[in-house]
Amino acid sequence: MITNYFSETTKTMKSSLIRELVAETKNVPGLISFAGGFPSPATFPKDILSELYKEIVAQQGRDVLQYGNSEGDDILKDELLKWENYPNLNRNNMIITVGATNAIYYMTRCLIDPGDVILCEAPTFLGTIVAFEAIGAEVQSIPMDNEGIDLNRMAEKVKQLRDANKNIKFLYTIPDFQNPAGITMSIQRRRDLLNFCEAEEILIMEDNPYSRLRFSGEELPTLFRIAHTEMNNSWLVTEIVSFSKILGPGIRVAYVKSHPELINKMVSWQQKVTISPDCVTERVVAKFIADGYMEPHIKSLCEFYKPYLDKMLTCLETEMPSYVQWTKPKGGIFLWLWLPEDVNADTLFYKAKDHLVTFIPGSKFYPEGQEKFNCMRLNYTYSTFEQIEKGIKHLGELVKSIYV
Amino acid sequence: MITNYFSETTKTMKSSLIRELVAETKNVPGLISFAGGFPSPATFPKDILSELYKEIVAQQGRDVLQYGNSEGDDILKDELLKWENYPNLNRNNMIITVGATNAIYYMTRCLIDPGDVILCEAPTFLGTIVAFEAIGAEVQSIPMDNEGIDLNRMAEKVKQLRDANKNIKFLYTIPDFQNPAGITMSIQRRRDLLNFCEAEEILIMEDNPYSRLRFSGEELPTLFRIAHTEMNNSWLVTEIVSFSKILGPGIRVAYVKSHPELINKMVSWQQKVTISPDCVTERVVAKFIADGYMEPHIKSLCEFYKPYLDKMLTCLETEMPSYVQWTKPKGGIFLWLWLPEDVNADTLFYKAKDHLVTFIPGSKFYPEGQEKFNCMRLNYTYSTFEQIEKGIKHLGELVKSIYV
Repeated sequence: MITNYFSETTKTMKSSLIRELVAETKNVPGLISFAGGFPSPATFPKDILSELYKEIVAQQGRDVLQYGNSEGDDILKDELLKWENYPNLNRNNMIITVGATNAIYYMTRCLIDPGDVILCEAPTFLGTIVAFEAIGAEVQSIPMDNEGIDLNRMAEKVKQLRDANKNIKFLYTIPDFQNPAGITMSIQRRRDLLNFCEAEEILIMEDNPYSRLRFSGEELPTLFRIAHTEMNNSWLVTEIVSFSKILGPGIRVAYVKSHPELINKMVSWQQKVTISPDCVTERVVAKFIADGYMEPHIKSLCEFYKPYLDKMLTCLETEMPSYVQWTKPKGGIFLWLWLPEDVNADTLFYKAKDHLVTFIPGSKFYPEGQEKFNCMRLNYTYSTFEQIEKGIKHLGELVKSIYV
Repeated sequence: MITNYFSETTKTMKSSLIRELVAETKNVPGLISFAGGFPSPATFPKDILSELYKEIVAQQGRDVLQYGNSEGDDILKDELLKWENYPNLNRNNMIITVGATNAIYYMTRCLIDPGDVILCEAPTFLGTIVAFEAIGAEVQSIPMDNEGIDLNRMAEKVKQLRDANKNIKFLYTIPDFQNPAGITMSIQRRRDLLNFCEAEEILIMEDNPYSRLRFSGEELPTLFRIAHTEMNNSWLVTEIVSFSKILGPGIRVAYVKSHPELINKMVSWQQKVTISPDCVTERVVAKFIADGYMEPHIKSLCEFYKPYLDKMLTCLETEMPSYVQWTKPKGGIFLWLWLPEDVNADTLFYKAKDHLVTFIPGSKFYPEGQEKFNCMRLNYTYSTFEQIEKGIKHLGELVKSIYV
C-alpha cells in the first residue's frame, strides 16, 4: 500500500473543511450559497488583461518565458513600491509569491519549529490555520471585540503561554475587513497592538487581501505602514497583499513587504518550492499598474460591490429576529452572524441545505478545541440581489423556526 | 535581530550553489557561459502563446480568473492524458503543479520524515538535492555507468542502509538525458531497475524534463509507462513532466502522474502552499495542445538544438586532449566532462573565468561528502555557434596548460 510510505505530517494533515462543505452542497439544484470566498467574475478586468497578456508575450516573450527571479520580477516590484508609495523601501524588502497562501507558507516555514506558537484572532481564516498546523505550529486564538483583537486577552494569553515555556513566534492578523468576522481594527487598536508586540518581541504577519475593498469610510494605515512611518521599526511587521479579490484569484500573484533578512530566507524557500511565480503573469500585473489601470479598477470594484453589501445588511435587518446579531463591515467580502448561545450552526448547516441556502458554520474558523458554535460566515460578493433577498429570507425563517 | 526568530531548518538551509556561481560570473564582459540550464529564448513559441493568452482571457476570463482546482485544471488534465495516450488513467492520477520543482517538493513532503533516505544518481540535479535536504531527507547517491544507475552498487547501498536501520523511501532518477551527466538509461536497465525497486519496495520519482528533446535515435518508454504497461504496477513510479524546456520556464506548469492516493495527498499540500497553479496559464497550455501545436513545436525544437549539440561535440573532439572524456547525448541540454582524477574543476572554475569561459564544477551535483571533483557540466542550448567554438577552445587550452 502506497499509504504506508506517507510521512507522519502527511498522514495526520487536515484538509480545508470549507472545501468539503462546499463540495457537499455542489449538486443541490437551486441552492443559494453564501459559503465561498469567491469574488464576482463580473468584476474581473478580462478585456484589459487579455490585451496585456497578448502584448507582454508578443513583445517581451524572450524575457518573460525564460526563468525568472526567485525573489520575483524586478519590474513588478518597482511598480508596487511606487504604487504603494514606499520611497524608503527597495526590492530587497519584497518577494512576489504564487498568491498570498504561498507567502503565508514561506513565512511560516521560515519561523516555525514544531511546537512553536502562532497567535491568531478568534475567529480567523481556516485555510491559514491548516497550513500553520501542517508546518507543526501550535495555534492559539484570541477573541476580538468590534475594534479588533482584544489586547487584554492577548496579554493574558502571552503570559500564560510563556509561563508554560512556549515559544511564541508571531501573531497572524487580518486587520481590514477580517475573514471571517468582517471586523476592521481601529486606528487606536492598531497602535496599541504594535506597541504591545514590539515590547513583547512578537512578530506580526499582516494578511491584507481586502484593505483596498473599502466601500465607505476612511482608509486606515496598515500595521506595516504604521510600523515604518511612526515607529521606525523595520522588523516587526510583514505584510502580505493579494490580488485575488482585485484582479481575480486565477492569477496567482501576491507580494510581501518585510525585513530584507526574512525576505531573503523566503526567497530561499521559493527557490526550492516553485523556483518562481509565473513570470508572464507577474509582468502583466506590472503593466496593469504601470498603464494606470489599477486605481480606476479598484474604484469600480468598490462601486460594484457596495450595493450587494447594502442589500445583505438590509435583508438581515428585515428577516432576522432581534436576538441575532451581525457585523456591519464597510468593505471586504464577508460578514459574521452571532446566533443565541445554544444554537449550533454546524447542525443548522444541514437544515439550511434543505431550505436551499448555505453558509460556512462559524466553528470552522477556530483552531480545534477552541471553537464557538453559535455563529456563521456569510459572503455577499457571489450572489445576485434576488439570491441575497431569497437566501436571507430562508435563513431568517429557519433561525426563527428552530428557536421558538 | 529578526534572524533570532528563524526556524532551525531555515537557519541551516542551503541555497542552490549554481545560482551563486552564476552570479559570480554575471558581470564579466565577454564571458562565454556553459553554466546555466536555460533553454534558448529563440525556441519560445511566443507568437502562438500571445494569441492563445489573449483568446483564453477574453473568452474564458470569468472562468480562468476565478479560483481553480488545487488538483489542477480538468481541461488541461484531459488534454495531457490524450496527448500522452494513457486511456487507462484518469484525472485522479494527475496533479498540475507550479513547475516540476513544485511537484518534487510536494511528493517529498508527502513521503519524507526527517532522517528518511532518498536514493539518487551520482551526479544528479543540485536543485533537487537542496530541496530534499531542506525537508530533512538523508540523500545517498549511487554511481552511473553509460546505461544509467549501477544496479549492483544500488543493491549494495540498499543493503548497507537497511542494515543500519535506515528507512529508504524512494529513488530520484532522471532517466532521459540526465541532468547533469547527459546519460540516458537503456531499456534493459529501465526494466531491471523497475524489477529491483518493485522487489525491494522502493518507490521511484521519475523526473522527466527532457525526454521529448531527443534529436536522434529511438525514443524509450518512460519508467512510468513500463510500470503501467508491462508490469501492471500502479504504485511504483511517479512521473513528473515539465514544460520548462518546451514552452519556456517562465510559464510555471508541470504535471505529475501517480497513484491516486499519493496524488490526493499532493493536492492537500498544494492547497496549503499555493492553492493552485496560475489558472490562465494552465488553460493556455491546454489550448496549445488541443489546437495541435505541441508536436510540430517539439519537432522544431529538436531541429533547432541538434546543430548546437553537434557543434559542441565536434569542438570537444578538436580541442580537448585525449585524457579528457565526455558523454555524447542524443538530446537534452547538457553534457558531462571527466578530467584526469587529480584535476579539480572547482579550482579550474576560477581560472576559466580569466579565460572568459564558465561552466558548473561537477562537485556541485553530489550530496555533501559524496563529491567527485574532476568533472564539469556543460550546457549547449544558450550559446551561439561562435561562442561554443571559442569557449571550448579556451577551455581546451586551459586544461592542457594546467596538466602538462
